[in-house]
Amino acid sequence: MRMEEIAEIIRGAAFADLGFLDERGRPSIRRVFCTWHRGIGGHLISTNTSSSHVRRLMCDGAACLYFANEARFEGVCLTGRAMVHTDRAHREMLWHDGDVKYYPGGVDDEDYCVVEFLADGARYYRLGDIGELADGQIAEWDAGAKYECCGG
Amino acid sequence: MRMEEIAEIIRGAAFADLGFLDERGRPSIRRVFCTWHRGIGGHLISTNTSSSHVRRLMCDGAACLYFANEARFEGVCLTGRAMVHTDRAHREMLWHDGDVKYYPGGVDDEDYCVVEFLADGARYYRLGDIGELADGQIAEWDAGAKYECCGG
Repeated sequence: MRMEEIAEIIRGAAFADLGFLDERGRPSIRRVFCTWHRGIGGHLISTNTSSSHVRRLMCDGAACLYFANEARFEGVCLTGRAMVHTDRAHREMLWHDGDVKYYPGGVDDEDYCVVEFLADGARYYRLGDIGELADGQIAEWDAGAKYECCGG
Repeated sequence: MRMEEIAEIIRGAAFADLGFLDERGRPSIRRVFCTWHRGIGGHLISTNTSSSHVRRLMCDGAACLYFANEARFEGVCLTGRAMVHTDRAHREMLWHDGDVKYYPGGVDDEDYCVVEFLADGARYYRLGDIGELADGQIAEWDAGAKYECCGG
C-alpha cells in the first residue's frame, strides 16, 4: 500500500478504534470519533476526562489507533503513544458549539480533554497486501504537516 | 444496556476488532470477520495461521473483541482470552466453499485456522449508558447456548 493510500484511509474515516491496556495490562478497545490528523502519524481526539480509557492512558500511554475503510476491506493499525491534553489551546482547537451537550461547562468543562496519539510504526492490511511502516517513513511523510480536521 | 441489546450488537455485526498484545507487549488491533457466536461470551474467527495476530495469540492469549453498531453509536468491548484451533472439527465448522480463494489447500490448508475468543468480562458503550458485565453475568446468559453463524 502506498503512503498516499494509507493517508486516504485515515482521512476518509470518521471513527477510529483506540487500543490501550486496562488496569490488569490486558488489551482493551474504545471506538472514538477521530477527524483531526497531522499526516499519517498524529491524531487528536476530544473525549471525556473521566472515561476509563483516558484514566488508563494517563497511567500508561502505550496505545494503537486503527482506521478502516470497511467498503474496501482495508485497514491500518498505527502503534505508538497517547497523551492527554487539558490546556486551553487544544480544548479550543477541537471544540464545536454542539459539544455543549456532552460537556455542559463548555470549553472549560473539567470533563473535556483532548487525547493526542503519535505513531511510531504502522501495519496496513488489504487482501494480498499486508506490510509495515517504520517510524522514519512516517516522519518523512509527515514532515511539515499541521493538524487539520478532515471531517470524516 | 440490557443483555439482549448487547447480544443484538454482536449478532448484527459482520466484523469485530480483535485487540491483542504485540511482540513488545503493546496493544495492537486487527479487524476480523466474526459471525460465529455462542451467546455473548464465545466467538469463532477463521483466519490465516501465518498472520501476525495469530502468531502473537499463540504466545499470549490476552485479547479483547469489540463489536459495534455504528449507526447507533453503540459498542461492546469483551475482554478475555483467545486460543488457536487447528483441529478438523473447527476447520470444517467454519469452512465455506468460497474460502478456497484464501486457502488454496482447502479445509486442510496449513495456513487455515480458527481463533476462539472466550470473554470473562465486558464493557458496553452508548451515549449516557456505559457499564460493565462480570464473568458470572455472561456465563448465566450463555448457559446452554451453542455456536451458531449469524451471518452478520
